[in-house]
Amino acid sequence: MSMSSILTVYLGSSLFVVSLVWFLFGKIQFPPLHLRKNSQLDKLLMCWWAFTGLTHMVLEGYFVFSPSFSKTTLLVISLKSVRKEYSKGDSRYAGRDSAVIAVEGITAVIEGPASLLAVYAIAKGKSYSYVLQLAVSLGQLYGCLVYFITAFLEGDNFATNAFYYYSYYIGANGWWVLIPLLISYRSWIKICETSDNVDTKTQKKKKKSLECSSLFVVLIFG
Amino acid sequence: MSMSSILTVYLGSSLFVVSLVWFLFGKIQFPPLHLRKNSQLDKLLMCWWAFTGLTHMVLEGYFVFSPSFSKTTLLVISLKSVRKEYSKGDSRYAGRDSAVIAVEGITAVIEGPASLLAVYAIAKGKSYSYVLQLAVSLGQLYGCLVYFITAFLEGDNFATNAFYYYSYYIGANGWWVLIPLLISYRSWIKICETSDNVDTKTQKKKKKSLECSSLFVVLIFG
Repeated sequence: MSMSSILTVYLGSSLFVVSLVWFLFGKIQFPPLHLRKNSQLDKLLMCWWAFTGLTHMVLEGYFVFSPSFSKTTLLVISLKSVRKEYSKGDSRYAGRDSAVIAVEGITAVIEGPASLLAVYAIAKGKSYSYVLQLAVSLGQLYGCLVYFITAFLEGDNFATNAFYYYSYYIGANGWWVLIPLLISYRSWIKICETSDNVDTKTQKKKKKSLECSSLFVVLIFG
Repeated sequence: MSMSSILTVYLGSSLFVVSLVWFLFGKIQFPPLHLRKNSQLDKLLMCWWAFTGLTHMVLEGYFVFSPSFSKTTLLVISLKSVRKEYSKGDSRYAGRDSAVIAVEGITAVIEGPASLLAVYAIAKGKSYSYVLQLAVSLGQLYGCLVYFITAFLEGDNFATNAFYYYSYYIGANGWWVLIPLLISYRSWIKICETSDNVDTKTQKKKKKSLECSSLFVVLIFG
């Protein structure tokens, strides 16, 4: 399969899932999304969690457990092509590097299903919605850190050329740094706010909220 | 340095720090610990965070950044001996394996200072206390997962003999699986409870609390 057909299939099926979540989940949630503040943001977040959860489980799950796929179906051939294509950006995927398999394994087995659960949690307005989103996002960030640091320590020389380095290795993974960073920041703030509402008086709230958000920034950026 | 003197220095200095936290922090916290529920548990948690934070920053920080220590002081000699001793349980520490350095680097630079901050957060009853403890504990668990999975994938054959395998590799690291698991479970529940208090009526609380705790167990244990 060529690069363009692989990207078309991946982006096309992702777009299909995202549209499905966007249009379908407007009807079955509780409390109804249109009665909440930030209903559009909640819908966007559900789309992200559906997309990232399926990517973790299907693409990354295949990479980790591929030796046990013996049947050659169209899906397996497609997944093999995706892996081969991505290896141009990071040859450790072809060489089955143990750090990469460990990170991808954790991502596929724990974070994949947990991401899909986040879609449900947001739709139903569950009490664990923010803490679940925070936990999964921090896991994604930790995974990216291990992924980038191990490559850096081993010479950062795993791409076929600069195009694949910047488009696949940096470009594709960059989204899994940026978006989890934004989501974990928001979830962290929301959890702190809830705790403030319960514990303390309202006049202290603004000061506490500022303290809480600056703490997150310091923790993540050093 | 012999094994017994290394262990004596490590455990002795840890005991010193833990005692300091236990006896000193009784006086400077707000709201006062003796006025809280679970005050003894909070004190125990502060001791754990002080101990684990210093271990991350001193022992693991030295391992990651050791090439830049040029001066030979008594502390550096001791730390070198600890690393040499621990390498008997996992020879990847002597070989500077990149996955181990990546995990130890994240632990030393982010989780070490964050653990010490948790001591302060518990003492002062900060609103971010539980979310911080959850984030650091999940980070420790993720680190242990990567640490054990990479060793397993590479043959699980890095110990000098069975004694060092079980006492250092399994025994010492086991505490950093068990305790973060307990703390993240407790923090998760506390965050969900707070969210329940704000969002819903009391009669739904018990059901929600059960749902929330069983979700955590399913997420972690598969």
